[in-house]
Amino acid sequence: MAAIFEYLEHVNVLKRLPRTGWLLNGVVPCESVADHSFAVALLAIGLAETINEDWAAEGLDRPLDVGQIVTIAVVHDLAEALLTDLPKRSTELLGKEVKHTAEARAMAIILGAVANGDKYVRLWEDYNSAATPEARLVRDTDKLEMVHQALVYERAGQRMLQEFWEVGEWHYAASARVYADLRRQRS
Amino acid sequence: MAAIFEYLEHVNVLKRLPRTGWLLNGVVPCESVADHSFAVALLAIGLAETINEDWAAEGLDRPLDVGQIVTIAVVHDLAEALLTDLPKRSTELLGKEVKHTAEARAMAIILGAVANGDKYVRLWEDYNSAATPEARLVRDTDKLEMVHQALVYERAGQRMLQEFWEVGEWHYAASARVYADLRRQRS
Amino acid sequence: MAAIFEYLEHVNVLKRLPRTGWLLNGVVPCESVADHSFAVALLAIGLAETINEDWAAEGLDRPLDVGQIVTIAVVHDLAEALLTDLPKRSTELLGKEVKHTAEARAMAIILGAVANGDKYVRLWEDYNSAATPEARLVRDTDKLEMVHQALVYERAGQRMLQEFWEVGEWHYAASARVYADLRRQRS
Amino acid sequence: MAAIFEYLEHVNVLKRLPRTGWLLNGVVPCESVADHSFAVALLAIGLAETINEDWAAEGLDRPLDVGQIVTIAVVHDLAEALLTDLPKRSTELLGKEVKHTAEARAMAIILGAVANGDKYVRLWEDYNSAATPEARLVRDTDKLEMVHQALVYERAGQRMLQEFWEVGEWHYAASARVYADLRRQRS
Amino acid sequence: MAAIFEYLEHVNVLKRLPRTGWLLNGVVPCESVADHSFAVALLAIGLAETINEDWAAEGLDRPLDVGQIVTIAVVHDLAEALLTDLPKRSTELLGKEVKHTAEARAMAIILGAVANGDKYVRLWEDYNSAATPEARLVRDTDKLEMVHQALVYERAGQRMLQEFWEVGEWHYAASARVYADLRRQRS
Amino acid sequence: MAAIFEYLEHVNVLKRLPRTGWLLNGVVPCESVADHSFAVALLAIGLAETINEDWAAEGLDRPLDVGQIVTIAVVHDLAEALLTDLPKRSTELLGKEVKHTAEARAMAIILGAVANGDKYVRLWEDYNSAATPEARLVRDTDKLEMVHQALVYERAGQRMLQEFWEVGEWHYAASARVYADLRRQRS
Repeated sequence: MAAIFEYLEHVNVLKRLPRTGWLLNGVVPCESVADHSFAVALLAIGLAETINEDWAAEGLDRPLDVGQIVTIAVVHDLAEALLTDLPKRSTELLGKEVKHTAEARAMAIILGAVANGDKYVRLWEDYNSAATPEARLVRDTDKLEMVHQALVYERAGQRMLQEFWEVGEWHYAASARVYADLRRQRS
Repeated sequence: MAAIFEYLEHVNVLKRLPRTGWLLNGVVPCESVADHSFAVALLAIGLAETINEDWAAEGLDRPLDVGQIVTIAVVHDLAEALLTDLPKRSTELLGKEVKHTAEARAMAIILGAVANGDKYVRLWEDYNSAATPEARLVRDTDKLEMVHQALVYERAGQRMLQEFWEVGEWHYAASARVYADLRRQRS
Repeated sequence: MAAIFEYLEHVNVLKRLPRTGWLLNGVVPCESVADHSFAVALLAIGLAETINEDWAAEGLDRPLDVGQIVTIAVVHDLAEALLTDLPKRSTELLGKEVKHTAEARAMAIILGAVANGDKYVRLWEDYNSAATPEARLVRDTDKLEMVHQALVYERAGQRMLQEFWEVGEWHYAASARVYADLRRQRS
Repeated sequence: MAAIFEYLEHVNVLKRLPRTGWLLNGVVPCESVADHSFAVALLAIGLAETINEDWAAEGLDRPLDVGQIVTIAVVHDLAEALLTDLPKRSTELLGKEVKHTAEARAMAIILGAVANGDKYVRLWEDYNSAATPEARLVRDTDKLEMVHQALVYERAGQRMLQEFWEVGEWHYAASARVYADLRRQRS
Repeated sequence: MAAIFEYLEHVNVLKRLPRTGWLLNGVVPCESVADHSFAVALLAIGLAETINEDWAAEGLDRPLDVGQIVTIAVVHDLAEALLTDLPKRSTELLGKEVKHTAEARAMAIILGAVANGDKYVRLWEDYNSAATPEARLVRDTDKLEMVHQALVYERAGQRMLQEFWEVGEWHYAASARVYADLRRQRS
Repeated sequence: MAAIFEYLEHVNVLKRLPRTGWLLNGVVPCESVADHSFAVALLAIGLAETINEDWAAEGLDRPLDVGQIVTIAVVHDLAEALLTDLPKRSTELLGKEVKHTAEARAMAIILGAVANGDKYVRLWEDYNSAATPEARLVRDTDKLEMVHQALVYERAGQRMLQEFWEVGEWHYAASARVYADLRRQRS
């Protein structure tokens, strides 16, 4: 059981860690990494169930596995318990490879304390490489949730969050529709 | 998609809502409802996988469905987006029935905006009545996570959190072992 | 004296409780219930003294009792020490009757610890039913203070506070004039 | 009405001003000046009503005027809206006379915007010179409330607050009894 | 060494003290006095080095002493450890003379605990009277840093900070150029 | 001047960045990187002047350059404006070399916007390699200031900060004496 305690200690850190992107852009105080991951999990349920109403229309050959999607959502930023939420620009300074390796090591340490932990390390690797329909759904959701939080901060007065709206391509048409709706709410 | 936006608005509220129990006992600032639900989800994974290593030993006739457990964990306090985190003592003042009915209405409103939302309302009802092995696991985890957070606040100096350690019976022997370990860490 | 200690413990809670309406609308951090009640008390003095300069003009048959007004102001949200600041929408979910009964019980518990406490429970009941000129003045002031705080948060950037400006009818012409002035400051 | 707006602006500042004594001793975040004044007002009600049960026993020749007591409580720190909560040690650096004169000027400015404002400046002068039974009751309460807040912070872990317990003489025997009770709660 | 401990205790206070000007204008939370002094020190380096590229053009007869400039920057608000950051308006209420004398006493107490402390008291006196080219550079920088912080808060939504942009004359042409650039960024 | 604006933007970030070590160990809220650097600068003055009273006794062949020491202190964590305050354990995950290279790049970017910026990059390199008596003094001070802050948080109740007291060897005997004094204050 001592192993679960160590794991829980790591998880708890994410409640205290601010999302660095907001901090750097002047949002003080801002949400925690845990806050974000939680909202990604719930939005992912909503988005996945919408897609599952007509999964073939999204080019899928089976419905999305919602349980797996929620699981990916809650582990997707777990490495930050050891590394903190490294700012976007740090990738260019540290190198993309180095950063990924460090995150993989962090995941192995954190989940090494848990029975069947390898399974979750693999889910996280799938997430990173967008290897499965479920991983791709969470990748879209991670960005959509960030855009929505940007909207919430903008409604609280923030004026420097344009970069958070420039989030590129979507894996699912349903994601693009949610994004379009967020843009409508903004204007 | 407008419906998903409304749902997302409710979810976002939980990032801002403090856990009332801590506030009332002098912990300022304290974690959000989202912080807590997130940690419950991750601890539930660890606990469920531990049990699944030998599920028969816990009297189960099948392994726990971890995907469902994580899902229950992230929705279990969703009604608080409309009702806020009502303090323990409010139950005696409002009446247990009234409170449950209000929560059920809140869940229906929030999840009414989501495709297949009924499924999640039912998972939440199961959670409330401890109706399934998965629901019971999350009920244990909800308390264990709270106990761990109490420990974290005690290490930060808080001295009035004894009541959070008095959490009664466990559905699983594994939960009792995690609790015993938390007590050891406390002393 | 132990009774006064218990009473003081309840009072102290209101320093830590956020005003839920602001939180739900994205104001983080926001004022405490104690902050609000304090400002209501002081604004009520200003408003009552203005009215007392020509009380007949407001249709009164005697000047307002300012001491009683300040007293009503500081007790008007005291029940929140046990119930927290329930969000507006909770009324529809819990039922108006249930909520009032719970508040009345909370007041009885909190003021039960104080000599002559019944007197203050009665002042609070008068406040709730707008039964006296003093109660009506505090009801107006409660709303005016909230509107002013909305203005302060808007000047700090908040853009979602329109609903706090839609506060309906006033008991006193003087209140309507203060409100009109707040609107002028807003534009 | 514009005058009431200016007055309200000053009052609002007290919600944002931290109580300097706590800050300097390491309590971060700490209560606002408004939080404190609010709790003084409510404790003063409790203490005054206790004394009024047997006012002769405290050497009074009439019961205390509770309405006036609450009024003194909410105005007693109003000058801080212009001067902020000057630390104790500043008195020795600025000189006691200078400080009092500055506070009196601040009160005149703030209450100059209110009908019958002179009355409240006089109540504040009475408070400063402990000139009336009501003023003396609020002076005792101001210290008792601070001691209770010190206790609350100590229960949250603070260990440097001994100086806040060294508060000297009491005007009323009832105050001494409340203080003795607070000491019992501490040990 | 005990003396250095006392000095360090005073320095530490500045991490906890909010800059009062922001608080009074509705910025909550706001930077600490230490935050500000730190940024003044770094901006002063940048500004001084710019001037030193062509010091004669600024009418100097020697380059600026950057080490001294950084030193003045970090001590310029040190008296606030004992007096807190007195609001602008307090000068008119306390009197300019009284305030300066109190600050000088505070500096003497704080730096009395440090070897060669008199040297830093003299640098601070030079700062106050703008007696040296280095002191004048820090005076300009103190204002420029405040203007920049106002800009940062405005980008976070604050709308009441106009007064912080009205900062009068500059000692150096380079300061005026930085200020002009800040204005451009604002519009 | 636009270059100075960019530099100032980077400096400003350090006011918002929490010191990660405290956060990970449960101190919420905690000081900013700017808070820390500021206190290092002032403590460094005190320590350097103490040593300069008898510099030969510390094995120096000349007095310490206090202006340079203060300068090193305010730039020593400047790279964190781009990289944030990476946690101790990240060194093992990212690799020491990688981390140093990233910091050096960050310093080059930040100081590239400033006239004579290379000089400060060199001072920072000297700091990293403890190459000069001044650099070594700031290295000692960086640790002493952290230890003092740990003491301040411990007095506020924190109980998990033992690791911050285990700081190894000192370059100067004077540093060891300050450390010994801090330990005395702790017990």
